[in-house]
Amino acid sequence: MADFTKVKVSDLEKFVTECFEKSGMSNEDSKITTDVLIESDKRGIASHGVARLKRYTDGIKNGIMIPDADYEIIKETPNTLVITGNDGLGQPVSYKTMKLVIEKAKKNNIGFATVRNSNHYGIAGYYSMMALQENLLGISTTNSFPLVVPTFGKDALLGTNPISVAAPTSKERPFVVDMATSTVPRGKLEVYDRRGKPIPEAWATDSKGHPTTDPGLVLKNVKEKLGGGLLPVGGVVEETGGHKGYGMAMIVEIFTGILSGGAFGPNVYGIPNTPANVCHFFGAINIEAFISLDEFTKSMDSIIRALLDSKKAEGQDRIYIHGEKEFILADQQQEYVKLFNRVIENIKEVGESLGVEANF
Amino acid sequence: MADFTKVKVSDLEKFVTECFEKSGMSNEDSKITTDVLIESDKRGIASHGVARLKRYTDGIKNGIMIPDADYEIIKETPNTLVITGNDGLGQPVSYKTMKLVIEKAKKNNIGFATVRNSNHYGIAGYYSMMALQENLLGISTTNSFPLVVPTFGKDALLGTNPISVAAPTSKERPFVVDMATSTVPRGKLEVYDRRGKPIPEAWATDSKGHPTTDPGLVLKNVKEKLGGGLLPVGGVVEETGGHKGYGMAMIVEIFTGILSGGAFGPNVYGIPNTPANVCHFFGAINIEAFISLDEFTKSMDSIIRALLDSKKAEGQDRIYIHGEKEFILADQQQEYVKLFNRVIENIKEVGESLGVEANF
Repeated sequence: MADFTKVKVSDLEKFVTECFEKSGMSNEDSKITTDVLIESDKRGIASHGVARLKRYTDGIKNGIMIPDADYEIIKETPNTLVITGNDGLGQPVSYKTMKLVIEKAKKNNIGFATVRNSNHYGIAGYYSMMALQENLLGISTTNSFPLVVPTFGKDALLGTNPISVAAPTSKERPFVVDMATSTVPRGKLEVYDRRGKPIPEAWATDSKGHPTTDPGLVLKNVKEKLGGGLLPVGGVVEETGGHKGYGMAMIVEIFTGILSGGAFGPNVYGIPNTPANVCHFFGAINIEAFISLDEFTKSMDSIIRALLDSKKAEGQDRIYIHGEKEFILADQQQEYVKLFNRVIENIKEVGESLGVEANF
Repeated sequence: MADFTKVKVSDLEKFVTECFEKSGMSNEDSKITTDVLIESDKRGIASHGVARLKRYTDGIKNGIMIPDADYEIIKETPNTLVITGNDGLGQPVSYKTMKLVIEKAKKNNIGFATVRNSNHYGIAGYYSMMALQENLLGISTTNSFPLVVPTFGKDALLGTNPISVAAPTSKERPFVVDMATSTVPRGKLEVYDRRGKPIPEAWATDSKGHPTTDPGLVLKNVKEKLGGGLLPVGGVVEETGGHKGYGMAMIVEIFTGILSGGAFGPNVYGIPNTPANVCHFFGAINIEAFISLDEFTKSMDSIIRALLDSKKAEGQDRIYIHGEKEFILADQQQEYVKLFNRVIENIKEVGESLGVEANF
C-alpha cells in the first residue's frame, strides 16, 4: 500500500480554510494561510505544507498565535516599512507586507520591509515569488527557532534562517532560491529519525559539540537544550566553510529581528507558550530601474541555458536550476496534490476537533 | 630566517601609489587602489593585498585594464545607479560608486548600484565597511573569473563571487562578513599547492567532476579548461548543501553581471587579453528608516555578546564574530604591515620595471 494519497486541491483548500476560520481567523487570512501551505505541498516541500496545520491550530489554542490579529504599520517611508504582526500567524502579515513592498518597488524602484511580532511564515519562497508576477526581483527571509550552533560553539543560538531570492526569466522557468542557511532544516532530521537512518556528519552536533550521525539524539538535545544542534551550511569547521553558513544566518538575524526592533537569536521563541516574536524581511526591486526587463530576462535565460547544457560530472545526468524541481512538481499537482496518509489522518483529526468535515 | 618582513605602511603606500601613477593612473585613483590593497594586507588577507600589484600593472600593460578610464553613470534614479567602469581598475570605480550609494541612502534610505565593465576590485569588505563610517548597513558583491562548478556539473561556469555585508555596533567590533561563495577562493589552493599539502574533499573537483585532494591538478585544469573546478560552499553533493553555495553564487551573478547589463558567468574574462567586464553590486541602507540607530547597535552588541559568551564545542576555546579576526590584525598593523619576503621581492621588481624605488 502506498503511504500517500492524491487529494483534490479544491477539497483540501476548502477544508483547511474552514479549519482556520473555525480557529478564529478571518476568511481572508484563512485563505491566504491555506494557499501558502498548499503551494508548499504542490512544490513538494511537505514539511511546510498542510502537515503544519496542527502546529498552527495548537499555536492559536495555547496563545502563541492570535488568530484575529491585524498587522500595523509602525513606520513608513516611500521605500521602507516596519510592520508588526501583532502576534498573528506569519502568513497573512507576510502576504500583505509583500504586496506593500511590491507597490513601493513599482512606484519608487525599491521596497524593503521588516516585520516583527510574527510567527512561522511557511516557505520563504512563496513571498519572493509574488514579485515574479510583477516582473520584479523578490526577496524573503525570516529568523526562526534557535536550532543552529555558531562555528566552534555548542549552544544553538541562531535559527535555520532561510533566504529566498526570486528572479524572472523569459523562456526558462524563473530562478527561485529558497534555502535554510543550515545544511538542512530540522524536518530532514525528523525524516531520517523516522526511517532509522544515520545522518551525514555535516548536519548536526551532539551535546559536546562534535558531529554526530544520530538524528534522534540531536532532536532530543535541542528540545531539552542539552547542547549541540544543527550545523550552518559548510559544516562544523572553518576548513569546509562552516563560518560562511554561520555568517549568512547572522545576516538574516540582522535584516529580520534586529532591523525590525523584534526578537533575534536566542530570543525568538524565547519564552514557552507566549508569542514567538518571529521576524521577517521582504524586498522587491524594480529591474527596470537598472536595465530593461527584456535584457534582464534574456540574460537570465542565457545563464540558465549555459548551466543546463554544460558538461555533467561523471555519474550525473543533469544539472538543476534553483526552483526547477519544485516548478516541475507544482505543474503536476495543480488539481491533485500528494499527501502522506499520516498527514491526511492528522489534519482530519484537527478538523474533527474543530467540527470541520473533510470530503477526502 | 622568517619568511616575512614588517614594512612601514607609509613607505609602502608611497611606493605602491607611485607604481600605479607610473602605469598611467591619476594620483587620486592610484591612492584609492593602494589603500584597498594595503587595507587587505593589514586585515591579514594577503591574497588580495599588494601581492596583486603585478597582476594589475600587467593587466594595464596587456590591455585588460585601462589606467586612465573614468567611470560613467549610465542610469540614475533617487535610489539606484547603473555605472560603467569603462574598463578601468576595479578599485576606483568601486570606491566612487560606494560613495554615491552612501549619499543616496542618507537622502533616500536606500542606495543600490550595479557596475559593469570593471575589473578585480580587491576585498569585497573594503566597500561594505565604508558604510560603517556613516552608520549605515553596507553591501558589496562582485562576480569574478569562472572557477566554480554548479552542483552535478564539471564545467567551471561561475565565479567565486564573494559577498560582504557590514553592520555597525555600539561597544563591540562591527560585524563584517566577507566571504567567497565557494568553499575557498583560488588563493587557498595556491597556498596548499606551494606547501605540497592535500586539500579537503569539499574544496574542488578533478576533470571528471569528482572531489580531489590535489590542489596543483585543479589549478592546472581550471587554467587549461580541462574540466572541474572549485566547489560551492556546501561541497559536491546536495546532501551537504552544495546547491546552497551554488545558489548564492547565482544570486551574485544576477545582482552584478545581469542587473548591470554586463558580463556574467562564463562571459566574465571571456576573451583572453581583452577587458574582463567584471561586474559589481553596492548597497547602503539607512538603519534609521527602520529603527533608531541606538536600538540597532545595542541589539548588535547583544547578539554578538550572546555568541561570544556562549558555550564552546569540546576542544574549542573561542567563538568568533565575522570580521573580528581581521579587525584584531588590522589594529596591530596600522603602522607596520607584515609582508611575505617573496611579495616584497615581487613588488620591488614591478617598481624597477616602472622606475619606482622602494625605501624598504
